[in-house]
Amino acid sequence: MADLMNNDVFLAFSTYATIVVLKMMFMSPLTGYFRITRKAFSNWEDTAMGKKNPEDRKKMLQTNPDVERVRRCHQNDLENIIPFVVIGLLYAFTGPDLSTALLHFRVFVGSRFIHTVSYVLALPQPSKGLSWVVGMITTFSMAYRVLTTALLL
Amino acid sequence: MADLMNNDVFLAFSTYATIVVLKMMFMSPLTGYFRITRKAFSNWEDTAMGKKNPEDRKKMLQTNPDVERVRRCHQNDLENIIPFVVIGLLYAFTGPDLSTALLHFRVFVGSRFIHTVSYVLALPQPSKGLSWVVGMITTFSMAYRVLTTALLL
Amino acid sequence: MADLMNNDVFLAFSTYATIVVLKMMFMSPLTGYFRITRKAFSNWEDTAMGKKNPEDRKKMLQTNPDVERVRRCHQNDLENIIPFVVIGLLYAFTGPDLSTALLHFRVFVGSRFIHTVSYVLALPQPSKGLSWVVGMITTFSMAYRVLTTALLL
Repeated sequence: MADLMNNDVFLAFSTYATIVVLKMMFMSPLTGYFRITRKAFSNWEDTAMGKKNPEDRKKMLQTNPDVERVRRCHQNDLENIIPFVVIGLLYAFTGPDLSTALLHFRVFVGSRFIHTVSYVLALPQPSKGLSWVVGMITTFSMAYRVLTTALLL
Repeated sequence: MADLMNNDVFLAFSTYATIVVLKMMFMSPLTGYFRITRKAFSNWEDTAMGKKNPEDRKKMLQTNPDVERVRRCHQNDLENIIPFVVIGLLYAFTGPDLSTALLHFRVFVGSRFIHTVSYVLALPQPSKGLSWVVGMITTFSMAYRVLTTALLL
Repeated sequence: MADLMNNDVFLAFSTYATIVVLKMMFMSPLTGYFRITRKAFSNWEDTAMGKKNPEDRKKMLQTNPDVERVRRCHQNDLENIIPFVVIGLLYAFTGPDLSTALLHFRVFVGSRFIHTVSYVLALPQPSKGLSWVVGMITTFSMAYRVLTTALLL
């Protein structure tokens, strides 16, 4: 174990993976914030906050475009950040140069922060599309190294 | 490798991560159970079970509140259990005390079982909300240790 | 670190995990392909491609059965491939025979390729259901070994 904590590439991976997973987790309270301010819930038991009138509560069982936008952004995070974490961990074990590894981790994590801002604020394309593609390419580049270094079929 | 299997914190992580991932996987057959008993499917090819009449089959392409509830619970698991697994693995490598690590793993896994029961049975709030928050705080606490122990930006 | 890269089971896991995660990532551009060819988008800012007329753009904010099918397949991947990756990694650390491990990894990854083809082409059941069940059983089998080898509650 101590071995891993003395390995700079593994430390860098731990740092960036934790940061980008925390960013992904932040989408949950953000969804909650929009649900509460837009009064838009999915579950009957979630509409009880303060209101007791069943009619008022029924109106809160609605979809809201701001809530749905944050949820789509969260889903896109799941679809992209989890592959990065899995492939990034295996990549760290292939023993890349620290500078090359840092470049991959920084570009990926940076691209996902730009993606989230672009998505949540609905910035004009190609900001969202481009940041998504950059993240994908970074993960592909690490997958290429894993498959060329560790291939055992 | 043998090194890792002699490390109690890693063994504890393996145990609790496997249990909570199995719990998450259980949501899939539960969705299937509700789809079949409520006759509510998303795909035309899934409606062929026993029925041949196209009219009967078309009626089964519907959404059902019980199915949607289980699916939302499953989605919440993906959004919370996967961050726990990623950050928990990195946390195990930082060499925490076994008792502290066990506390984190037990609280998180316990909170997710309570969350699932609260969600599926639609128990009144704050049972679902509170168990979700407790799980989030546990993961944040482990992330804090990872970033203060292994930071390399 | 070098230790892990000399371990054949870990190399096999790295290879198959990377392949099946890349397969999962491939669902994103496939969704994009169907969104563009079916002109079906979720976000206003995504409809600007070539079109400037707001009326034409508004029509593109629609759901499409082909897009939804690929998205459901992607979701099923998240729900099944991520548990495989987590449990498969812990399984690799329990020191199984290479041949047994390879059997698990090959059956799982094969089942998910069959699942994707069955889902996207809407092949008649039980092709999709059976490939899903085979993948689940493979992951359960690895989880069983993890819990019987590494149990520390």
